[in-house]
Amino acid sequence: MAKLTSRKEDYSKWYNELVIQTGMAENSKVRGCMVIKPYGYAIWEKMQAELDRMFKETGHQNAYFPLFVPKSLFEAEEKNAEGFAKECAVVTHYRLKNDENNPGKLIVDPNAKLEEELIVRPTSEAIIWSTYKGWIQSYRDLPILINQWANVVRWEMRTRLFLRTAEFLWQEGHTAHATKEEAIVETKQMLDVYADFVEGFMGIPVVKGVKSANERFAGAEDTYCIEALMQDGKALQAGTSHFLGQNFAKAFDVKFATKEGTLDYVWATSWGVSTRLIGALIMTHSDDNGLVLPPKLAPIQVVIVPIYRDDEQKNKISEVADKLVKELKSKGISVKFDDDDTVKPGWKFNEYELKGVPLRIAIGPRDLENGQVEMARRDTLEKSFEKLDGLADTIELKLEEIQTSIFDRAHKFREENITEVTSYEEFKEVLENKGGFISAYWDGTPETEEKIKNETKATIRCIPLENIEGTETGTDFYSEKPAKFKVLYAKAY
Amino acid sequence: MAKLTSRKEDYSKWYNELVIQTGMAENSKVRGCMVIKPYGYAIWEKMQAELDRMFKETGHQNAYFPLFVPKSLFEAEEKNAEGFAKECAVVTHYRLKNDENNPGKLIVDPNAKLEEELIVRPTSEAIIWSTYKGWIQSYRDLPILINQWANVVRWEMRTRLFLRTAEFLWQEGHTAHATKEEAIVETKQMLDVYADFVEGFMGIPVVKGVKSANERFAGAEDTYCIEALMQDGKALQAGTSHFLGQNFAKAFDVKFATKEGTLDYVWATSWGVSTRLIGALIMTHSDDNGLVLPPKLAPIQVVIVPIYRDDEQKNKISEVADKLVKELKSKGISVKFDDDDTVKPGWKFNEYELKGVPLRIAIGPRDLENGQVEMARRDTLEKSFEKLDGLADTIELKLEEIQTSIFDRAHKFREENITEVTSYEEFKEVLENKGGFISAYWDGTPETEEKIKNETKATIRCIPLENIEGTETGTDFYSEKPAKFKVLYAKAY
Ligand SMILES: [Zn+2]
Ligand SMILES: [Zn+2]
Repeated sequence: MAKLTSRKEDYSKWYNELVIQTGMAENSKVRGCMVIKPYGYAIWEKMQAELDRMFKETGHQNAYFPLFVPKSLFEAEEKNAEGFAKECAVVTHYRLKNDENNPGKLIVDPNAKLEEELIVRPTSEAIIWSTYKGWIQSYRDLPILINQWANVVRWEMRTRLFLRTAEFLWQEGHTAHATKEEAIVETKQMLDVYADFVEGFMGIPVVKGVKSANERFAGAEDTYCIEALMQDGKALQAGTSHFLGQNFAKAFDVKFATKEGTLDYVWATSWGVSTRLIGALIMTHSDDNGLVLPPKLAPIQVVIVPIYRDDEQKNKISEVADKLVKELKSKGISVKFDDDDTVKPGWKFNEYELKGVPLRIAIGPRDLENGQVEMARRDTLEKSFEKLDGLADTIELKLEEIQTSIFDRAHKFREENITEVTSYEEFKEVLENKGGFISAYWDGTPETEEKIKNETKATIRCIPLENIEGTETGTDFYSEKPAKFKVLYAKAY
Repeated sequence: MAKLTSRKEDYSKWYNELVIQTGMAENSKVRGCMVIKPYGYAIWEKMQAELDRMFKETGHQNAYFPLFVPKSLFEAEEKNAEGFAKECAVVTHYRLKNDENNPGKLIVDPNAKLEEELIVRPTSEAIIWSTYKGWIQSYRDLPILINQWANVVRWEMRTRLFLRTAEFLWQEGHTAHATKEEAIVETKQMLDVYADFVEGFMGIPVVKGVKSANERFAGAEDTYCIEALMQDGKALQAGTSHFLGQNFAKAFDVKFATKEGTLDYVWATSWGVSTRLIGALIMTHSDDNGLVLPPKLAPIQVVIVPIYRDDEQKNKISEVADKLVKELKSKGISVKFDDDDTVKPGWKFNEYELKGVPLRIAIGPRDLENGQVEMARRDTLEKSFEKLDGLADTIELKLEEIQTSIFDRAHKFREENITEVTSYEEFKEVLENKGGFISAYWDGTPETEEKIKNETKATIRCIPLENIEGTETGTDFYSEKPAKFKVLYAKAY
């Protein structure tokens, strides 16, 4: 394998090379769509398993709704439709036929035109709320707490592996409630679930906040989000949870009989995270040698590499390694003993470093004599000698330490890259030279936000929840109008 | 809830009512597509988890390939393309725009026509083999053992919930091998995995066999299958494993350098099972009272219903039930204590019977005095009194017994419904009056098979593997030509 371009040299090239060389994903023959390769998919599976557990723990069930949305349903919630209309894949025909002028080739059969076009779901509010209409008559039918694991399609013009692809995998929660309050509680609860998952499991620190009206999900009353900071100083939206008010209930006429016997529209939320998170994972932790994975997400947590000259040495090492493998597995730690003869240990070291395996154990004949092994941490690249005695316990502790330490490092970086500014001069300077989040007072108007966006490409990533709750007020650095709270600006993925 | 139509009265109506009333699935607003509701999806999740485990145990990894197949790739393997061309959803445009004549409505933007149409995958051989081309240079890159969990679309004209829907969920394995022998071993191995899963986990007896050329997967050299028999005497193909030869390697020019230094085309297999299996599950085990689920597949394995007149009784029962719940959970048994006050025990009994919960435990004050509970088996509807003492162990054993007993019953039914015939007269009579599998000698020609199909609607479901291996020969009952082996005919879903 070729050495990666360094992050300093070209961050975006580094990112692409890393994704390709680790075997996580690649571009496909279909414009803008990626192939998620086994190593990338194994990480996604770990994310899915943990999220699914968290969703079920909070009372949600999975279900599955159609891939296609008939155009008349798609357009029912006007803002939502407007928001996605420009990036929709549209199915217009249901049959191919032989091309008479080109033997062996097929053409779309003009006689198989659909009466109504089908939109490949960019998100499922429309199809789900048209279904919920049949499920909800009374308050007794509420709440409905459903999640769906699915693929969605948004016809993006500029795509990047994991970060922005025409098709991506995600989960989308869609809940229905009898009261506004309950729907808001649900919206916030799922934001907390996302924050806990992204911080605790993926080791990525996030800011919880609310989007400005400009950046809101199309059709939402409020979009809550978690925002993360990448190593190159750009922000990445890591998850969103929307309070949809009664917008979809009104669009699809979903009313329920209240306890009091009146009729009311149902309150809604939706929330989602996607394979995009894998891009965030890479850009938060990895380095010029390759991927760095938090142990909780690593498909292989520990790799054992034997170093030997002859079969006798190999056999002795294998005996020790096999025992260690067994002990680690019984602790639920995933481990690989790589005794492949066809490549050198040095090659293996590079390979597992590239792939982000959190701990590497090397065992040579000298180590055995000394009752020890060499342990290398992927995150810090530190090496140490560890006693064979109690090694499984040492490894277990070390993995926990790495999980924490990876988060702490990212958290420190994030904290160092939130800069307070009070003037537009300062704002532009920080944006250009330092990057990161810029914390500044905002007058609350879309006009100010848009002007700044047009002039600098920075957007309001969120109004941090803690700032909304605060009482401090100030002056907008751009408009010089009074401002109720500080927001976070940044350039973003 | 309404009483189900009986199976005798109208089997297909019974089936539909059962799917709807149990809350497993319903038709959606999209022609031919279903909504898989939480109860149905929970069963699918259990199937997925077990299959996924079995695939990984046999060395496979998951990955994800694009939903769309560009037309030029789709048509590359001609037989495959021909087989699916007539039922393809085709994406032709990537944008909608406002309808100027109809405010608030959208139309397809004629300026956003794709240069090349995209087919929504009906199966993924084409997109996957065009990808494998980039992954395979040498024998060292082989085998590739990949599975994908995905949705696929086949534009069926007559659809039925689970059994035949325009969109369905499935898994599709796609493997690449250096030799023909290895590919055939893989094809057969996966057939065995499917048979073990369907029999051992779903309790559905199957016949392992090979398809006749007429019924082969489009693009395969051989299609292995497992065939099951439904209660109404019709067969259902429960899973297929295809030996694809070098057809896709040739279509996509996928060659590899052999150990000997020559270049050869890669050998392929593919194999899949789908949400259709849920239809087979229903039609194998269920009865006029509703669903019957094998314990291994039941989202709720045990339900506990308290029967009480006052709070004092309720509290006493709850104490015992809570302890039982804890014990069952520690054994990995999923249990629900339904102490809902708003409905009567009788209503609950019906509900859980309808939903196929394998064991129902009823506890009343008199039972407590006698140190016992009432246990009802869903499969046999038998009731018994069981001692409270050691009840969790009793339940565990009973669940195992039910799992076996459900399979045995279905197996007995299947055996009773394989009829040997030697004349066409007999064939037609059995087909009309008894149904089931008809075992008869076949001359091996597509002509005979087609004539019989046209005249009776019965098709060759498979050539049982054991018949192929045998040496017995005979005479075709229809053509009176010599025949090498007996095949199974049936009308099929
Ligand atoms: Zn923090
Ligand atoms: Zn059998």
